[in-house]
Amino acid sequence: MTNTKYPFEQIEAEVAETLGQQMHDLASELFPICRSITGNGVRKTLNLINNHIPLEIHEIPSGTDVFDWTIPKEWNINDAYIENERGEKIVDFKNNNLHVVGYSLPINEEMTLEELDKNLYSIPQQPDAIPYVTSYYKERWGFCITDKQRKELKNEKYKVFIDSNLKDGSLTYGECLIPGKEKKEIFLSTYICHPSLANNELSGPVVTTYLAKWIMQKPRKYSYRIIFIPETIGSIAYLSKNYIEMKQNIIAGFNITCVGDERAYSFLPSKYGDTIADKVALCILNNKVPEYKHYSYLDRGSDERQYNSPGIDLPVISIMRSKYGEYPEYHTSLDNLSLITRKGLAGSYELHRLCIELIENNEKYIVNNLCEPQLGKRGLYPTLSNKSSSLFHRNLLNFLAYADGKNDLIDISEKANVPINGIYTLIDTLRESNLIISVD
Amino acid sequence: MTNTKYPFEQIEAEVAETLGQQMHDLASELFPICRSITGNGVRKTLNLINNHIPLEIHEIPSGTDVFDWTIPKEWNINDAYIENERGEKIVDFKNNNLHVVGYSLPINEEMTLEELDKNLYSIPQQPDAIPYVTSYYKERWGFCITDKQRKELKNEKYKVFIDSNLKDGSLTYGECLIPGKEKKEIFLSTYICHPSLANNELSGPVVTTYLAKWIMQKPRKYSYRIIFIPETIGSIAYLSKNYIEMKQNIIAGFNITCVGDERAYSFLPSKYGDTIADKVALCILNNKVPEYKHYSYLDRGSDERQYNSPGIDLPVISIMRSKYGEYPEYHTSLDNLSLITRKGLAGSYELHRLCIELIENNEKYIVNNLCEPQLGKRGLYPTLSNKSSSLFHRNLLNFLAYADGKNDLIDISEKANVPINGIYTLIDTLRESNLIISVD
Amino acid sequence: MTNTKYPFEQIEAEVAETLGQQMHDLASELFPICRSITGNGVRKTLNLINNHIPLEIHEIPSGTDVFDWTIPKEWNINDAYIENERGEKIVDFKNNNLHVVGYSLPINEEMTLEELDKNLYSIPQQPDAIPYVTSYYKERWGFCITDKQRKELKNEKYKVFIDSNLKDGSLTYGECLIPGKEKKEIFLSTYICHPSLANNELSGPVVTTYLAKWIMQKPRKYSYRIIFIPETIGSIAYLSKNYIEMKQNIIAGFNITCVGDERAYSFLPSKYGDTIADKVALCILNNKVPEYKHYSYLDRGSDERQYNSPGIDLPVISIMRSKYGEYPEYHTSLDNLSLITRKGLAGSYELHRLCIELIENNEKYIVNNLCEPQLGKRGLYPTLSNKSSSLFHRNLLNFLAYADGKNDLIDISEKANVPINGIYTLIDTLRESNLIISVD
Repeated sequence: MTNTKYPFEQIEAEVAETLGQQMHDLASELFPICRSITGNGVRKTLNLINNHIPLEIHEIPSGTDVFDWTIPKEWNINDAYIENERGEKIVDFKNNNLHVVGYSLPINEEMTLEELDKNLYSIPQQPDAIPYVTSYYKERWGFCITDKQRKELKNEKYKVFIDSNLKDGSLTYGECLIPGKEKKEIFLSTYICHPSLANNELSGPVVTTYLAKWIMQKPRKYSYRIIFIPETIGSIAYLSKNYIEMKQNIIAGFNITCVGDERAYSFLPSKYGDTIADKVALCILNNKVPEYKHYSYLDRGSDERQYNSPGIDLPVISIMRSKYGEYPEYHTSLDNLSLITRKGLAGSYELHRLCIELIENNEKYIVNNLCEPQLGKRGLYPTLSNKSSSLFHRNLLNFLAYADGKNDLIDISEKANVPINGIYTLIDTLRESNLIISVD
Repeated sequence: MTNTKYPFEQIEAEVAETLGQQMHDLASELFPICRSITGNGVRKTLNLINNHIPLEIHEIPSGTDVFDWTIPKEWNINDAYIENERGEKIVDFKNNNLHVVGYSLPINEEMTLEELDKNLYSIPQQPDAIPYVTSYYKERWGFCITDKQRKELKNEKYKVFIDSNLKDGSLTYGECLIPGKEKKEIFLSTYICHPSLANNELSGPVVTTYLAKWIMQKPRKYSYRIIFIPETIGSIAYLSKNYIEMKQNIIAGFNITCVGDERAYSFLPSKYGDTIADKVALCILNNKVPEYKHYSYLDRGSDERQYNSPGIDLPVISIMRSKYGEYPEYHTSLDNLSLITRKGLAGSYELHRLCIELIENNEKYIVNNLCEPQLGKRGLYPTLSNKSSSLFHRNLLNFLAYADGKNDLIDISEKANVPINGIYTLIDTLRESNLIISVD
Repeated sequence: MTNTKYPFEQIEAEVAETLGQQMHDLASELFPICRSITGNGVRKTLNLINNHIPLEIHEIPSGTDVFDWTIPKEWNINDAYIENERGEKIVDFKNNNLHVVGYSLPINEEMTLEELDKNLYSIPQQPDAIPYVTSYYKERWGFCITDKQRKELKNEKYKVFIDSNLKDGSLTYGECLIPGKEKKEIFLSTYICHPSLANNELSGPVVTTYLAKWIMQKPRKYSYRIIFIPETIGSIAYLSKNYIEMKQNIIAGFNITCVGDERAYSFLPSKYGDTIADKVALCILNNKVPEYKHYSYLDRGSDERQYNSPGIDLPVISIMRSKYGEYPEYHTSLDNLSLITRKGLAGSYELHRLCIELIENNEKYIVNNLCEPQLGKRGLYPTLSNKSSSLFHRNLLNFLAYADGKNDLIDISEKANVPINGIYTLIDTLRESNLIISVD
């Protein structure tokens, strides 16, 4: 069913030149900021996004209970390094904020290599990568370095310095509510809690920001709830405040993460795979990028874990490029700005945009009269009957055959074998000829 | 599940000798008549069929609105030809009524080859075939000739003569209502609007006529509604008058067309493929001619388009031999009496007859006692138990296992793996032994 | 999903040493007894089983109507032989009780080979096997011998002697009702009507006896109904007395037969394959012995025929080793004590035991809070987050994702891909941490 005349690769390439470039620029601006689940890095990030779309910034105080969890203390960091005996900073937070274990306590001590090594993290299988490590719920300190560097460390004295603080503060998130004609909502969620990581973090907020910009400027039936939160604790906190309203209103949701590289397209379904979000996403993916990788809900790993949890049960799925946990650079310093591309971001943006467009148009249709309509008198059929009939007529008649009020646009597309690509034009023609009406 | 002892080919061959011959004779009688969607050709055809079965002839006046359509003017034609400068009739309606475009206006003019050629129709890919072309809803005139002849036409003056008339009259159709014990109906529809075309037209009315003859002389539970109509406008007109009653009563319907050649067997399902008509047809086809071609509803092209349209939703399917649009002779002069055969007609007749027989018998059954019955005391089981048991006993016990009031005959045949061939004998045995009763 | 760490073969081997040996010993004790559908052989058998588990012995008088059947006369036999002219007992019931056709009338006559031969049964394809033949419902007499011996019989006079009697008496069966916390029952049925046959008979009663012993000594939610009956007439008679109560209470049943050899594992579903018994059995078989043979209900042949019959509709399935009718020794003297093994019996015992355990635990679960629980504070999650997560956590979180009150244990095992092997431990952990509760 892919539109061979105008393939998706061409759309990707075109959008890459315009929005793709702008999204990559925004990612580059956000990259150096040291984010964590709380702290000034999050605030700085939200402020920069606020230059593009209106965000309401919320703060939830440390110690607040959110379901089974408690908002942790706020963590901020100014500087950190490891100095050898010769006063050389051999590891410096200012070079790469991944060097410090997230939520590290402050320290300013001299110690032996043996002592230091207990607090070092590296990846033997990836000797050139700095790993991304955090310890939100147990107080400790640590440094992350390449395994290559670790192996070269000499048995000497080291000065270990972390100028961080961990004290009562708040958890910060941003929310953009865009009203539509109806109270029913489409939900976009993305996270802003990772430090300098590109595909598994910044691709999410930048694609979401540009989707929000597009949504705000288009006519819309549905309302939109778009949130920029720290992962896990942020979605739990947000749900604890809003879940009743969300359960009443959200008809489809997208957890937007890992949408920046150019390799795969990936789909992660909702828990039972039976929501409108699943149906729409599969329709678009099957039409546009049929070679995508279809994961199981058991492969989940981001905020869809909360949105789909028992009792919450929101219809949230993920469309990704290379999925978290499935690409070698994941959660290391190799997941940097060179991994995400204008085309990678553009393709993800387009697929989400097409999904939203389809939800907005996914009504049920019913024909306006009994039996096939007389297409000839409406100029929709050749007056001379012979052996052949055009693809347009076949599509039109097949659309009408299944426009019986039971099928939504996606059902009709599948049952009548009318590609979703051309279906909006077909609907316009049928509406203008007063041949169909939409029903709820 | 095919009965290997008495294969369907043998039944086809036997019926070909008797009814097959009679059906082919009737087709030959009807072949020369120039039919269209209105006019005296239709009346003549219905009168000849009326010699075999009682038909009520209906006339609907031109200009009558039928749903989205209007009954067109009535068209009749006496003569038509093209004469060259030497007075030779190079194209003559009297030789083949396909030569004139259906619904051609009268004309009596001299013209150049250039002028004439604008109104000529031929098929370059089939140089020896005269195409079948109509123009019911736009007034024009035209001639259909072989492409070979067209290429040989010299650049001279031609006399073009059509003695036709197109004026207010009526649309004619025939209806045969055969009452049964119940008000519920089995519906047969066939069309009588094509001129000299054999598989895609006459095979339909002749098989339908002989099915009607058989139905009238057999005991029957259901009532039968059998109609001979012009295609499309005829079914729309008929539905506009009768659809409420039809929706109330019809439990299964068959659009009978293209049932005369010997090549394929074809099945075209109802819109959702879930009606009793589909279930019965598939059961018979799978048992008798399992190599049949299974089309999609998207391949439809005859009056099932109207019967299955939204809001009408009648359970109508088609069992065909070579389907319209799928064989090379379709809608050309090559679809003539040599294409349809006694055996071709006989096989189609038999399959429809078996479907009707199955619907008539397709009750739900329930066993008359709890636990397996003692077959021995009824003489239905060997008194000596050892290793083997006969196929008859296995079928009998499997039938009883599923005769729990939930399954109709077709369900039992499939679940108990009892071929539909022998199932009536089995039912008789079980009824005589008072082991089952039928339930609604 | 098989637990590769502790494969089922190892369990089989371990149980073979203990219970396997004991079950084979009991089979050896029961083997020489000449059982039939009535008579002292059945009583002797039930008395020996009564040494292991408490049985209530019931007697139903000959002539009692049970549904479509009548309890036959009681048959007993003391001696039987065929003597040749030289006074040699060439066939002797004391050597093998299969030599006499079940329910043979008494006889004491001299006859020619020709006359004798009409009452002889042998299997040409298995020249060394004595067949097992009965004639419960037609009065006759007969001897079963090897085909080899039959072919060697000389044309001389034979003395034919059967000291049996067939007169009004009763049909005997044993019943063991074990009360549980709930009135709902698990049902085990096995038969005790075949003479010296090992896999197709004694394996059933001995495995059932040891299952009953285990059930009695374990804590249990459900009540148990365990019956030892003659096949067919016994289950029909039992049902005629108890079916209303059985239909009210039985949630899952197992017809236990052919559970002694070491070759296949076999599964025979209930009539529609949709009961809890089917679901549990398939879960255990797929997890433990995934190479088992899956039969159709159409392959049935034992008392599940009655339990699943229309109007009875009990949820009864069979887990077997080599199924009746499917192994060469079936219903011949070759189905003897060497065919069944300690390991063969042990494996069947274990599979049934695991099924019962699973039914006892197969509740629906629901998580105790909204969103994912904070596992870290319960010591169930590492405090340091990095790339990997353990299988235990994944299983735990996947279990919780589907613990939404809709899924029972088997559903969760399948949807969350948590092997049934480790699921009880997981439940214990989750219960102790107060993370789940069970719901009805």
